[in-house]
Amino acid sequence: MKQLKTTALRYDDGALYVLDQRRLPGEVHWHRCLDDEDLVALIRGLAIRGAPLIGVAAALWVGHCAERSDGRDKLITTISLLRSSRPTAVNLMNNLDRLLSRIDQGADNPTLVEEAIAIVDEDIALCAAISEHGAALLQDGDKILTHCNTGGLATAGVGTALGVIIRAHQQGKNISVLVDETRPLLQGARLTTWELKHAGVPYRLICDSTAGSLMRLGKVDRILVGADRIARNGDFANKVGTYSVAVLAKHHGIPFYVVAPHTTVDRECTHGDAIPIELRAADEVRGASGSFGCCNWSPRDASVYNPAFDVTPAELVTGWILDSGVYTQEQVKAGALVSSNHL
Amino acid sequence: MKQLKTTALRYDDGALYVLDQRRLPGEVHWHRCLDDEDLVALIRGLAIRGAPLIGVAAALWVGHCAERSDGRDKLITTISLLRSSRPTAVNLMNNLDRLLSRIDQGADNPTLVEEAIAIVDEDIALCAAISEHGAALLQDGDKILTHCNTGGLATAGVGTALGVIIRAHQQGKNISVLVDETRPLLQGARLTTWELKHAGVPYRLICDSTAGSLMRLGKVDRILVGADRIARNGDFANKVGTYSVAVLAKHHGIPFYVVAPHTTVDRECTHGDAIPIELRAADEVRGASGSFGCCNWSPRDASVYNPAFDVTPAELVTGWILDSGVYTQEQVKAGALVSSNHL
Repeated sequence: MKQLKTTALRYDDGALYVLDQRRLPGEVHWHRCLDDEDLVALIRGLAIRGAPLIGVAAALWVGHCAERSDGRDKLITTISLLRSSRPTAVNLMNNLDRLLSRIDQGADNPTLVEEAIAIVDEDIALCAAISEHGAALLQDGDKILTHCNTGGLATAGVGTALGVIIRAHQQGKNISVLVDETRPLLQGARLTTWELKHAGVPYRLICDSTAGSLMRLGKVDRILVGADRIARNGDFANKVGTYSVAVLAKHHGIPFYVVAPHTTVDRECTHGDAIPIELRAADEVRGASGSFGCCNWSPRDASVYNPAFDVTPAELVTGWILDSGVYTQEQVKAGALVSSNHL
Repeated sequence: MKQLKTTALRYDDGALYVLDQRRLPGEVHWHRCLDDEDLVALIRGLAIRGAPLIGVAAALWVGHCAERSDGRDKLITTISLLRSSRPTAVNLMNNLDRLLSRIDQGADNPTLVEEAIAIVDEDIALCAAISEHGAALLQDGDKILTHCNTGGLATAGVGTALGVIIRAHQQGKNISVLVDETRPLLQGARLTTWELKHAGVPYRLICDSTAGSLMRLGKVDRILVGADRIARNGDFANKVGTYSVAVLAKHHGIPFYVVAPHTTVDRECTHGDAIPIELRAADEVRGASGSFGCCNWSPRDASVYNPAFDVTPAELVTGWILDSGVYTQEQVKAGALVSSNHL
């Protein structure tokens, strides 16, 4: 497979390397993927995260397995293992289904490698198209709130919600960002701050619970978030806390956009409550741990409820910023997410 | 001064001891207060926190100083130093003003000691009255959400919002609690869990940003929070994140109560936006630190906005649970908070 490098993935000398996002921002460590189980553990452990990136990483791994001449049965086993790694993110399923259908069609291994590379290239192009559509909505002086991480660390390209922000900054707009820290895994505090710093975009990090009072004080002009899965009707699942932000936006009359490639739309899913929500370990909430250290501040046996995602209903969304354009509530109601002419 | 002991304060052998809440839940450590500056540092550093408790601790310290025969000028200096320790909590100002006015009236030292003890006894009685009024509102089977810590660790008595919950549990009502972890200082995760565990009340700890989706899923029946200061019109300041919870409650039609002694009402304050909001150090948001360890997960130079409190306007409040009773929006509009016949 040809060499390639994105913010968080690298293919080099016949090996797939992933930037271990658990170690950011303290350390930039590239991990060489060893086998299927290793990649699954990296995804489950959030070394690789972000719905588009998980999908791209899985596709690249299948491409890698095809290139090293794994047989049909072995490839199908790999795909089946990867599919189980994160239940909410739909890009993973979509990309694996695409490769599986090629295998079913009798594609040879070089064709599968090409397909995997095409998935990477497409994600980069999708991000570029998304960021152009979205940046056109941002005004000079906008103070933008975002949740979780949706930049180059979450995709193969410039990102989704964060890609829009960075593109607007590159266009010379005077943009500043309020970054939700995004408990429990602190993707905002660790990753979005890191990306914004590198991109030179001014930001302020806040606790998730501070967002509401900033809206009340008129300090938020627009809200951009990503999505792990979008239903046909426009409901979507994203990092837990997104729903609260959406309700607060509605209450304050602040435009709230969800930003994602069309590959995040699940055409089989009729509404948000059909999206499976992953429950994660109690220890994630009892404290925080990572390369920065390990703290457990709660009683050791504290009972915890820790859903990784929540569902935001379409009626709270001002617009859906996809690679094919920006869709309003009326358009989404009319079926735009499943009928539009995507990139 | 007579011996006394509450959950978080102890007067023993002529010395004031405070339970260092920074070390909970890992360690129960009683710190002997050395001098004025020591107490101010304990309050600023949140070893002592909770608006009523701060006020009681300050009063007890002034009582202690009076008992050891500090002169009038020295007592006035002590009061002035303590007053500056936390700007938002009004109980501190109220209690110190009360002692100051006794000094102005020419009270002798034994009278000041008595006044300090009266402040402790009154806070215990206020909590008991509040918890009875509030518990009457709770139904068997209620799932109650709370933010921050408002129990015996925040008052001299059983608490305010958490006191109501614990009282309802003692009455045999089948109550369960959803505990907001309350970033950045994690009073929910560290302190409320600790108190609920000791009281035997079932709870689940959640990230602050998870509260909204639980409301959407019908898993929250009622919300009880405390207050650091209540304005005449019913607006109130409380731990940052309270406002978001109030907006989410309104959106979902969930009853939202603020629970406090009448000493938290600032009769001089006409509306919430006149309440000073304390801004705290960036490092509190860049990571977490305490006796549990120290983690910094953000870029070291991350720009941060860290207000300790936010303001919730009266129109989002279902009821004000005070020691003198429960007041509706109509009653508060009619001036109940400033005219009612408090305990």
